[in-house]
Amino acid sequence: MTEQARFAIGVDLGGTNMRIAAVDESGKQLELITTSTEVKRGRDVVVADICDAIRSLRKKFDGRGQFAGTGIGVPGIIDMASGTVLQSPNLPDWANYPVRGEIQRRLDSQVILENDANVAALGEKWMGAGRDAESMCMFTLGTGVGAGIVLDGKIWHGMTGMAGECGHITIFPDGVPCGCGNRGCVEQYASATAVKRMAIEAIATGKAPELARAMSENPEFSSKVVFQYALQGDASAKQIFQVVGRALGLVLADMINTLNLPMYVIGGGLASGWEAFAPAMFEELRKRSYVYVATAPDETLPARKHTLITRALLGSDAGLIGAARLALM
Amino acid sequence: MTEQARFAIGVDLGGTNMRIAAVDESGKQLELITTSTEVKRGRDVVVADICDAIRSLRKKFDGRGQFAGTGIGVPGIIDMASGTVLQSPNLPDWANYPVRGEIQRRLDSQVILENDANVAALGEKWMGAGRDAESMCMFTLGTGVGAGIVLDGKIWHGMTGMAGECGHITIFPDGVPCGCGNRGCVEQYASATAVKRMAIEAIATGKAPELARAMSENPEFSSKVVFQYALQGDASAKQIFQVVGRALGLVLADMINTLNLPMYVIGGGLASGWEAFAPAMFEELRKRSYVYVATAPDETLPARKHTLITRALLGSDAGLIGAARLALM
Repeated sequence: MTEQARFAIGVDLGGTNMRIAAVDESGKQLELITTSTEVKRGRDVVVADICDAIRSLRKKFDGRGQFAGTGIGVPGIIDMASGTVLQSPNLPDWANYPVRGEIQRRLDSQVILENDANVAALGEKWMGAGRDAESMCMFTLGTGVGAGIVLDGKIWHGMTGMAGECGHITIFPDGVPCGCGNRGCVEQYASATAVKRMAIEAIATGKAPELARAMSENPEFSSKVVFQYALQGDASAKQIFQVVGRALGLVLADMINTLNLPMYVIGGGLASGWEAFAPAMFEELRKRSYVYVATAPDETLPARKHTLITRALLGSDAGLIGAARLALM
Repeated sequence: MTEQARFAIGVDLGGTNMRIAAVDESGKQLELITTSTEVKRGRDVVVADICDAIRSLRKKFDGRGQFAGTGIGVPGIIDMASGTVLQSPNLPDWANYPVRGEIQRRLDSQVILENDANVAALGEKWMGAGRDAESMCMFTLGTGVGAGIVLDGKIWHGMTGMAGECGHITIFPDGVPCGCGNRGCVEQYASATAVKRMAIEAIATGKAPELARAMSENPEFSSKVVFQYALQGDASAKQIFQVVGRALGLVLADMINTLNLPMYVIGGGLASGWEAFAPAMFEELRKRSYVYVATAPDETLPARKHTLITRALLGSDAGLIGAARLALM
């Protein structure tokens, strides 16, 4: 990094851990601090920890480049105008907390807040799968299903910053109840939580003996275990990932018919199950979206008119890189 | 209109009739020509008729203002870059026809093509329900269900001009087959065609005696007749409009969760059935979209943060006005 170069600090604030990195203009991660999020000790402690990490990174890199500011990805709904977290299931005492102002006051430098699914999308757009796409949508499959929509290079926030709540698109109108008040949201079929729930449901029917044994033997039984069984050919596990694929195919079809973007990226922890869910996803998509069929990569179109559905490339760094990008735009 | 004022010509090209109007910069319709679309006589005759009407309007208004060009709303999929109609169910011999170039050559003036649902949205945005909204989405409920998405004042076309195909969003995954290849598209439940189909289905069960009599007595049995019966309290007709409302509520919930726009406008012929479908639509929407619930007009939010769902104001003029707007932007 030269003295003229700019750098920013990106914060990926999770309910369990927070990751804070200095990132330069080229998207290179200069240094990373990972620490636990002390949710139980209250928001003041968490904010103090964030500020300490930012100060420490600035101290190290200020001499080597120009500091552009801090971007923070927060899991929740944010009022962009006031820099307030309106609602955050994983950080309950942050509701209505004007966190941007609080951190700016302590650090005396610019802070930008953004929803975590949006910063992940921005990260993949900047340095990952979406590098060559002006517009894209990224689905993050984790505890829930988040989405971030980037149109002409910019995050589409909508009127109140709530755009991209695509995890709550209805795919099965009479389906599983969701915490949002709806039934049959894609989040209930394509999140890590959903995979675990479907495995427990399969076990309860008595027709998934392998998964039953795995659950009894493994106290950390999770979607990852189900994915391993699917890879090994277990029928129940494979069927669960077919539901994931079908759910993603349905929601991607809706999004493609609506926005006709050149790229849709699938990230988050459950995206590692790609091999198990992708065939059903593409099969469903071809049935559901004639816009996709008309623009699928195997049709006789120039490549710039293809709709690409692809895995995220940055893994858990997407949010961090995207958060830093907020301050470097 | 003063000599310095600009005017444009808007063309609303339908499969049955075409309407061609001179419109001034203030959105005022100066003169309208309505004529039948001679589809059976071939595209050359139709194009000649369009050009004759444009010449006649220009002759009349050229002295009174500056001509800005012609916008044409076409029912079909358009390649914006080449000004070609790729596909048009109602104008079959227009497929792959470079109509923009053809008309420009004959008239020696600028022509802009646009999809008919998009020009309707642009018309309502400019002079109708969406006047005060920077961004909005309009659903046109006619033979099919079309949609146009306006973001920050501009039509969102997507990569290949196929954005806004929201009529083909899946609302019931195992539902009625659709011409697009999918099943359960909103178009199969919320178009005039769908209302007529549902009425015929109800009559076939023997449980809709009033509708059965209406159909036998009226050779022009249509969605309008079903609406009249719904207004008069006929249970079968009311139930059909409840399905329409439920379908619209489902698709609006998806769109609100995805884009968080301030306004969604319902237009097209079937929108006249608003009283019969709106209660079920709002009921479904409140169940399905927590983003809507958080921004509904009766919540304690400033009005600029309300999500408005409203009827179109321009009726069948929306497309005409929007087409003229294309040349005046």
